[in-house]
Amino acid sequence: MIKPLNLLSQKLNNRVIVELKGNREYRGILDGYDPHMNLVLKNAEELFENEIKRKLETAIVRGDNVIYISP
Amino acid sequence: MIKPLNLLSQKLNNRVIVELKGNREYRGILDGYDPHMNLVLKNAEELFENEIKRKLETAIVRGDNVIYISP
Amino acid sequence: MIKPLNLLSQKLNNRVIVELKGNREYRGILDGYDPHMNLVLKNAEELFENEIKRKLETAIVRGDNVIYISP
Amino acid sequence: MIKPLNLLSQKLNNRVIVELKGNREYRGILDGYDPHMNLVLKNAEELFENEIKRKLETAIVRGDNVIYISP
Amino acid sequence: MIKPLNLLSQKLNNRVIVELKGNREYRGILDGYDPHMNLVLKNAEELFENEIKRKLETAIVRGDNVIYISP
Amino acid sequence: MIKPLNLLSQKLNNRVIVELKGNREYRGILDGYDPHMNLVLKNAEELFENEIKRKLETAIVRGDNVIYISP
Amino acid sequence: MIKPLNLLSQKLNNRVIVELKGNREYRGILDGYDPHMNLVLKNAEELFENEIKRKLETAIVRGDNVIYISP
Repeated sequence: MIKPLNLLSQKLNNRVIVELKGNREYRGILDGYDPHMNLVLKNAEELFENEIKRKLETAIVRGDNVIYISP
Repeated sequence: MIKPLNLLSQKLNNRVIVELKGNREYRGILDGYDPHMNLVLKNAEELFENEIKRKLETAIVRGDNVIYISP
Repeated sequence: MIKPLNLLSQKLNNRVIVELKGNREYRGILDGYDPHMNLVLKNAEELFENEIKRKLETAIVRGDNVIYISP
Repeated sequence: MIKPLNLLSQKLNNRVIVELKGNREYRGILDGYDPHMNLVLKNAEELFENEIKRKLETAIVRGDNVIYISP
Repeated sequence: MIKPLNLLSQKLNNRVIVELKGNREYRGILDGYDPHMNLVLKNAEELFENEIKRKLETAIVRGDNVIYISP
Repeated sequence: MIKPLNLLSQKLNNRVIVELKGNREYRGILDGYDPHMNLVLKNAEELFENEIKRKLETAIVRGDNVIYISP
Repeated sequence: MIKPLNLLSQKLNNRVIVELKGNREYRGILDGYDPHMNLVLKNAEELFENEIKRKLETAIVRGDNVIYISP
C-alpha cells in the first residue's frame, strides 16, 4: 500500500506523463507538487492528440485538471 | 455495512475496474488510495470505449474523476 | 422528518436505484455509504438508457455523481 | 427575513417542486433535508420536459443538483 | 465599500433580478438569503430567454447557480 | 508583490471590467467585494460579444463565475 | 523539489504565460498571487487561439480557471 502523494514524492526528478481534462497531456520532469496535486514540471512538453504543441522550460500545472499522473 | 473507503482497503493488491468521467476506464492492481479516492494503480490499462489505448506501469488517478470503482 | 443520511442507514441491505449524472443508472443492494454519499452496492447492474450494460459484483460509487437514490 | 433552510423546515410534509440541473424536475412530499440541501421526497414523480418519467416511493436527492425548490 | 452580503441584507423585501447559469432568470421579492447566496424569493417569476415560463409563490434558489443578483 | 484581494481593495470606486465564464462581461464601478471575489458593481453594463445587453444600477456578481477582473 | 507556490514566489516580476480553461491564454508580468492561485498580472495580453484579443494594464485572474502557469 502506497499513498498517492507518497508515490509522487518517490518520483521527484523522474519523467512523468500527466493527463489533463480536455485531452491535454504534459510530459516532463517532476520537480515539485503539493497536497492539491498542483505540480511543477521541468523541460515539459504539451501534447494535444499525441502531437507536441508547445515546449515549456517550467510549468506549474493546477491539480484540479489532472486525470492521472503516470511515472 | 461497510464504509466505501474500508472496502477499498480490503481490495488492496486486487485487480479493480475504475470508471472515470468522459468514458475513460482503467483496470489495474490497486496499490494505494487516500480519503479523496485518489488511487494508485499498478500494471494499468487505459480503455476508451472498450479498447485498450495505453498501458501504464503505474498511474495515480485523481479521485474527483471517479464514477465508480469495482473490485 | 428524516435526515437524508439516516434514510440511507435504514435502507442498508435493501435494493436501491442510484441515478447518476450522464444518464447512468445503477441498481443493487446498498451495502454501505459515507457522509459524502459515496456508496457501496452489491450485485449491481449498470444501466444506460434502460439497458443493462454491465454487471458488477461490488461497486463503490462516488457520491458527487449522484442525482438521486431511491430505495 | 427567512433563512432558506428555515423555510425548508416549515415546508416539511408539504408538496414541493424541485428543479434540478439538466431539465429534471421532481415533485413530492418533503420528508427531510440537511444543510447541503440534500432532500428526502416521498411519493415523488420525476418529470422531464413536463412529462412524468418515473414514480418513486422515496427519493434522496443530492443537494448539489438543485436549482430551486418551490413549496 | 459595501460587502456583497450586506447589500443583500439591505435589499430584503425589495424586488430583485436573479440571473442563473443556463440562461435562467428569476424575478421576485427577496425574502431571505444565507452566506452561500441561497435565496428565498416571493411572488417569483421564472424567465427563459425573456419569456415568463412559470410563476412561483415562493422559491428557494440554490446559491451556486447564481451569476448575479440585481436589486 | 500585491495580493489579488488587496488590489481589489485599492480599486474600490474605480471602473472595472469583469469577464465571466460563458462570454459574459460586466463593466461598472467596483463598490465592494469579499474573499470569494463576490463583487458589488454600480452603474453596471452587461455585455455579450461586445454589445450592451442590459444596464443594472447595482449588481452582486458571484465570484465563482469570474475569469478575470481588470481595473 | 520545489512547491508550486514557492516557484510562483520566485517568478514575481517575471513574464509568465497563463493558460486558462476555454482556450484562453494570458501573458504578462506576475505581480502577485495567493494560495488559490489567484494571480495579478501587469501589462497583460489576452490571447485566443494565438491572437491578441485585448491588452490589460492589470488583471486579477481567478485561480480556478488556471490550467498551467509557465514562467
